Amino acid sequence: MINSGGRGRRPGQSDTRVKIKETAHRHFLVDGYYGTSMRSVAADAGVDVALVSYYFGSKRGLFAAAMSLSANPAGLVEAAVAGDISTLAARLLRSALAMWDDASAGSALRAVITAAVSDTDLNRFVSEAMSKELVAPVARQLDQPDAAQRAGVFSAQVAGLFFSRYVLNVEPIASMPVDEIVRILAPAMQHALTG
Amino acid sequence: MINSGGRGRRPGQSDTRVKIKETAHRHFLVDGYYGTSMRSVAADAGVDVALVSYYFGSKRGLFAAAMSLSANPAGLVEAAVAGDISTLAARLLRSALAMWDDASAGSALRAVITAAVSDTDLNRFVSEAMSKELVAPVARQLDQPDAAQRAGVFSAQVAGLFFSRYVLNVEPIASMPVDEIVRILAPAMQHALTG
Repeated sequence: MINSGGRGRRPGQSDTRVKIKETAHRHFLVDGYYGTSMRSVAADAGVDVALVSYYFGSKRGLFAAAMSLSANPAGLVEAAVAGDISTLAARLLRSALAMWDDASAGSALRAVITAAVSDTDLNRFVSEAMSKELVAPVARQLDQPDAAQRAGVFSAQVAGLFFSRYVLNVEPIASMPVDEIVRILAPAMQHALTG
Repeated sequence: MINSGGRGRRPGQSDTRVKIKETAHRHFLVDGYYGTSMRSVAADAGVDVALVSYYFGSKRGLFAAAMSLSANPAGLVEAAVAGDISTLAARLLRSALAMWDDASAGSALRAVITAAVSDTDLNRFVSEAMSKELVAPVARQLDQPDAAQRAGVFSAQVAGLFFSRYVLNVEPIASMPVDEIVRILAPAMQHALTG
């Protein structure tokens, strides 16, 4: 779901690039999307702001690259859709819940969602990423004329779980054990998928 | 889901109170939660800021009262749960989709969700409102030991639909016709509810 926005890597520069990403990661988690600037990251990483710009293009690109340090939702979806379609929902839920429950990856995902809600560019970025890297791969597994619509509803169920549990903290879903969520939600999501 | 945060009404003051609410409503939709202050609303409504404070207590209270002008999710849930349990999901989805698709109510709901994501107090307010005015009334209709958990998952499915469709604008759910959403999602939500 999150890709590096970099324009490629100059030979020998990879350490600097990683250092900028790590610095940006820390800044975004502590100060949020709005409180972080390319200039403040550059200063803290001890590099010129032009280099940050060269590597990541924009603050959005830097954000995407920095956040991908600790979460790789696209890879998770790819792995989950590879197995038996009749257990796809449970598989995806278990690995996605593990990612969100991980302190570092979870903070990164929360930061992305929070920022995307109020920033138009990031909003488009996240919504396109969801269409491309969650809805589309799931739809490709379905052999139905309404595959895209079913995958869309399935993805909205995924989004709803994480939004309610980790962003809004709505009870009881915020404190339900993983097994309990999977027991109730997976069959419901499977129903949306395959009828 | 959204209640007036007022401390009651002094006789003869209702016109002023309504005027403040209408002014605040406009400000919150145009300038967002952060861009709006009790002071700016008071100035625009031609009243003293102490009066705004007297009626609504805090910016959060003013926000809740102002937004309830055009959306009443709690009333909607109350009406939807009153009927046959086996068709609750479809009933709730249809009336909630109509509310979100309404220009004025939809903007208000979007403003509430957007503000709640980044403001801690509002976050608690929205999450408590969801627990109290969506999860709880649905749970009361269920005759199962895990009623609260099932209602929680059901509510997360509701939240996911609206978050994906109206806040993040993820395709294809953002542009699916109401009938198509209800056809795929209602049975899946019903499954979460009654197994």
